[in-house]
Amino acid sequence: MDHQLIFLKNNGLKRVWIDNLSPAIGNYALKKIVDTEFHLEVDIYADSIDEIEAVCHYKHVEDTQWCECPVTFLENDRWCAQFPLEKLGEYVFKIRAWINDFATWKTRFLKKYSVKEDYEIEVITGLHLLEHILPTNHSLHQKIKEIAHNKDAEKLLQLLESSVLKNLISKNYHPHYVTESEEKRIVVDRKRAQFSAWYELFPRSTHPHKKLTGTLSTLIAKLPSIKAMGFDVIYLPPIHPIGTKNRKGKNNAAEAMPNDPGSPWAIGNIEGGHTAIHPQLGTVDDFKNLVHACAKLDMEIALDFALQCSPDHPYLQDHPEWFKKRPDGTLQYAENPPKKYQDIYPFHFAAAQWPQMWDEFKAIIDYWVDLGVNIFRVDNPHTKPFIFWQWLIQSIKSKNPEVLFLAEAFTRPRPMYQLAKCGFSQSYTYFSWRNTKQEITEYLEELIAPPVCYFFRPNFWPNTPDILPEYLQKGGKMAHMIRLTLAATLSSNYGIYGPVFEHYEAEPLHEGSEEYLDSEKYEIKHWQNKEDSLEQYIGLINKIRHEHTAFHNTHLLQFLNTDNDQIISFCKSSEEDDNQIMVVINLDYQYKQSAMVTIDSTTDLPQQFKIKDLLNEAVYEWHQGLCYVELDPQKNQCAHIFQVIRDE
Amino acid sequence: MDHQLIFLKNNGLKRVWIDNLSPAIGNYALKKIVDTEFHLEVDIYADSIDEIEAVCHYKHVEDTQWCECPVTFLENDRWCAQFPLEKLGEYVFKIRAWINDFATWKTRFLKKYSVKEDYEIEVITGLHLLEHILPTNHSLHQKIKEIAHNKDAEKLLQLLESSVLKNLISKNYHPHYVTESEEKRIVVDRKRAQFSAWYELFPRSTHPHKKLTGTLSTLIAKLPSIKAMGFDVIYLPPIHPIGTKNRKGKNNAAEAMPNDPGSPWAIGNIEGGHTAIHPQLGTVDDFKNLVHACAKLDMEIALDFALQCSPDHPYLQDHPEWFKKRPDGTLQYAENPPKKYQDIYPFHFAAAQWPQMWDEFKAIIDYWVDLGVNIFRVDNPHTKPFIFWQWLIQSIKSKNPEVLFLAEAFTRPRPMYQLAKCGFSQSYTYFSWRNTKQEITEYLEELIAPPVCYFFRPNFWPNTPDILPEYLQKGGKMAHMIRLTLAATLSSNYGIYGPVFEHYEAEPLHEGSEEYLDSEKYEIKHWQNKEDSLEQYIGLINKIRHEHTAFHNTHLLQFLNTDNDQIISFCKSSEEDDNQIMVVINLDYQYKQSAMVTIDSTTDLPQQFKIKDLLNEAVYEWHQGLCYVELDPQKNQCAHIFQVIRDE
Repeated sequence: MDHQLIFLKNNGLKRVWIDNLSPAIGNYALKKIVDTEFHLEVDIYADSIDEIEAVCHYKHVEDTQWCECPVTFLENDRWCAQFPLEKLGEYVFKIRAWINDFATWKTRFLKKYSVKEDYEIEVITGLHLLEHILPTNHSLHQKIKEIAHNKDAEKLLQLLESSVLKNLISKNYHPHYVTESEEKRIVVDRKRAQFSAWYELFPRSTHPHKKLTGTLSTLIAKLPSIKAMGFDVIYLPPIHPIGTKNRKGKNNAAEAMPNDPGSPWAIGNIEGGHTAIHPQLGTVDDFKNLVHACAKLDMEIALDFALQCSPDHPYLQDHPEWFKKRPDGTLQYAENPPKKYQDIYPFHFAAAQWPQMWDEFKAIIDYWVDLGVNIFRVDNPHTKPFIFWQWLIQSIKSKNPEVLFLAEAFTRPRPMYQLAKCGFSQSYTYFSWRNTKQEITEYLEELIAPPVCYFFRPNFWPNTPDILPEYLQKGGKMAHMIRLTLAATLSSNYGIYGPVFEHYEAEPLHEGSEEYLDSEKYEIKHWQNKEDSLEQYIGLINKIRHEHTAFHNTHLLQFLNTDNDQIISFCKSSEEDDNQIMVVINLDYQYKQSAMVTIDSTTDLPQQFKIKDLLNEAVYEWHQGLCYVELDPQKNQCAHIFQVIRDE
Repeated sequence: MDHQLIFLKNNGLKRVWIDNLSPAIGNYALKKIVDTEFHLEVDIYADSIDEIEAVCHYKHVEDTQWCECPVTFLENDRWCAQFPLEKLGEYVFKIRAWINDFATWKTRFLKKYSVKEDYEIEVITGLHLLEHILPTNHSLHQKIKEIAHNKDAEKLLQLLESSVLKNLISKNYHPHYVTESEEKRIVVDRKRAQFSAWYELFPRSTHPHKKLTGTLSTLIAKLPSIKAMGFDVIYLPPIHPIGTKNRKGKNNAAEAMPNDPGSPWAIGNIEGGHTAIHPQLGTVDDFKNLVHACAKLDMEIALDFALQCSPDHPYLQDHPEWFKKRPDGTLQYAENPPKKYQDIYPFHFAAAQWPQMWDEFKAIIDYWVDLGVNIFRVDNPHTKPFIFWQWLIQSIKSKNPEVLFLAEAFTRPRPMYQLAKCGFSQSYTYFSWRNTKQEITEYLEELIAPPVCYFFRPNFWPNTPDILPEYLQKGGKMAHMIRLTLAATLSSNYGIYGPVFEHYEAEPLHEGSEEYLDSEKYEIKHWQNKEDSLEQYIGLINKIRHEHTAFHNTHLLQFLNTDNDQIISFCKSSEEDDNQIMVVINLDYQYKQSAMVTIDSTTDLPQQFKIKDLLNEAVYEWHQGLCYVELDPQKNQCAHIFQVIRDE
């Protein structure tokens, strides 16, 4: 008999089947937020018409004892359960189900007794089952004998109602065979994994005096203004020493001038590598001060984790075996055709010494975690093995579950989703290039649908130091407002690269390029306060986001039909309370656009309701059916953000 | 470090990921037909931009060697493969994929050489790779040294084109790490698993002379007329000795009269059990003759496999441990509330001796297979453990892959689908109760969609000895024609219970009952030839089914829009050739109905085309857009079965 047949025959008493658990993504961990309830549904069924009992066992991985919660019948073989996620870190859960002989007997007995047919033997059968459930010397045995003697169904029914017996029965089942589902995992993160507003800036550009280099200390001075805009996470490009060999000049020139500071992503020189701080930026103490200053403002630092080396990085001396030599002994610099990074060497992940390399990379993260950093924005994770990230993120989070990782992968859909499955807490997206109503709608529908919404937390960026989309180049201030509003209202996680963004500076390197002209990647900038900047608008948007829990998740989103392709509208709902928001945005940065928005019964809105525009406090009466909107860029309007007011 | 982290770290060189294999149904076997090609699609991707190579390994389980077929790139990380299914039985396959360093090098080299940039070092790199691929003493080593000396890209390109090298390269890859998918299974059946017309009849009712009991010999005499109707499978209710204790009388009377023959499903008496033949029906030799006579007509017998016992069955004496005793020592007869089967005892599948019981049940199947039976219709499989069927069907088919099993499970959807996953070749369905256009359309859309179509082969029955639907009771001959036409054209497997069906006798036991009055289950019938029977119509439908391969599968089905709820229309396509059929059926057995059928571009039909009604040879010109149809029951019309004629 072959292996499979032997396996089947060893499980001959298996009666109950457990299938189709939802949510689930194979063997990968689901992503949830702490202090929420986890809800699951599952198919549980057996042959015949016997009664099934099921429980869910769950625990935090560090707990030794399993907790148990009931699994209750919904309909048509579908069951559900829920349990609280009270701690950060990994939870595991599984479903256990079995035939409950006592419940099966009881159902049959009640059916027969209700028609007074052939029930006396069932009385005896039930009492037999009870005798096995009761402890040997239990006082009820005598009572059972009496009922059995008289085959007294009424007395039996009374007995079953007694709380003593109910308790005993619920704790003393004797299943022949318990079917157990696979163990499934949930990674429980802090809320910022799901709700965050990021601000990227170059610390070296934070000095108030022209021609001076910004430092971690001058960055601290900037924090209040960033806080005033309402951001939570301050993401810094690499703060490490920058290579001198093959250093890039202004506008990515292959050769640097003597004073060019180089790209921060060309990490490492004689002064240190991934655990060093660029001497011009400051010291470890300065960094600690920065972390502390952020914390006081309820913000936090996200560091860049870019696994690559400048030609001067100490690793090239200390671990030449981690780099792939060409036959002539030279190394190949990084390429992402047609882009060339002559100032950067990649690691060779297929090197024989990869285990030591993995440990070293983990040590880098550990170093910064020890200094108080709990968020890492990972540069180009899709050019390193997925399994490395799976190991790294799980290793870090098993000790420091508060740590979050944002994947900066701009590549094909499957690798991007795979990185999220491998553990990244948040992910960059294609949002930067989705401009039309149809593009935005289709992309969001994909992101909020299962299974993507189970593992992929989008983070929407209207711009980055690498991405100045054509829409921003052409549309000026209004285009920046529109894209910011879209990012901030569609996705609970979003970010901008500033101050270039709030200054809506958007000159490309050349026609057709997405690179900023005179990019901050290669030179030090000095940002002066700008009249008519977007700081106030951004501050208002972030304030609205904070105050309205409908913006604290991405997946409870429903698009509303509009009869104008320039007007996009959608409803957002809260996971936490009854907060409900309707957003209307004019995608046209030039002209006034109007539309009829369709409110239908699928929106869960009443027939009549009031809405308040959170941008200007205007109140309107709306209703199911068609409602009129207009937005005029000439009047500095790009959006309505309506709060639905249900009770007056 | 925990188990999962150790696992990840042990696989640090894994670069390629294999996901989302289609078709697939977890660990259950897919169902396919012999002499077809198996097509699969799968996601294969890696980090970075390295080139991936993938192959599919497949074999019949009994073969020792794996075969290999290429897996080729489609688009966007999706790949495909196909291989032939040439033998009955189980196939296994898996996907293997790895980074191909040589192909990666070649792509990079060609890209650089095309712009004549930095390519000389790539020439050397490629030659190094070649040297490792070549056997040590190969004559090409000298040539390689020469090219290397001159860094001659053109010569290298010529060398790569040489067939010697191409061969060596394709056979001598040195992958660091091969990613292998799970092994997946395919059960390959003969075509009758997918295309069959069943005829159920009671052998004891086949005697031409009234008051005499039919036998296996009188059944043989009936075979030509059944063949003339075009059926392939003759399904016999149990042919075993029938219990005498608690025997049922006419119309399920609790007490039988002395001459009542009893229900054939009350299996076993002193004359034998599941491997005995009822003495009134004949001998083992008669049975062999029947099997032989069927085979000569290219038909075959399907036996009923009903795992239950009459109170007289020898098992009750020989294996009392296989039955569940109540506290008073009695057995509980079978019940399916409100139905009571006092003449039947169920087996106790949770008995301690279940392994012996399983073996005995398998021995029953083996016995009949040895006598030439290759199809079993299994009675109420959903009241026995799924895992038993999984074991039994796999055990039988591993030695006798030609054997087919039809699941007679009328229960909730999930248990019905689970039985199919566990190995049943075909399944009864809810078709008998799906009457309206919407009901039929929704049900078929469910059955033909993945994953259901991967494992569930529907068998549509307008009636059975247990099911006389209200529609047939009320609608007479025309209703029978409509339901037969629906069953035979919608599903490639279908069956009827006759001769009651072709005689369209449809008197229920009482108003609201689905039982036949004077059911053949409890008495012997004598069917006389009936003028105006449906034999000819059935013969024509089955002839059309045989001649047109569009009817040889169920899943290539597309419903067409019609503007009348009484008119249903659908297109069927062939898996084997370009045969294409359009069916139009009037669901109203009383009144003439007409409709406009919408032919749109999704049907893959040309702008203009001819159609021929295979029921009456009439030819029409149709076109994309709206086409008119009418069907009049008064003119004995219930359907058009149009063959699409593409080239004239």
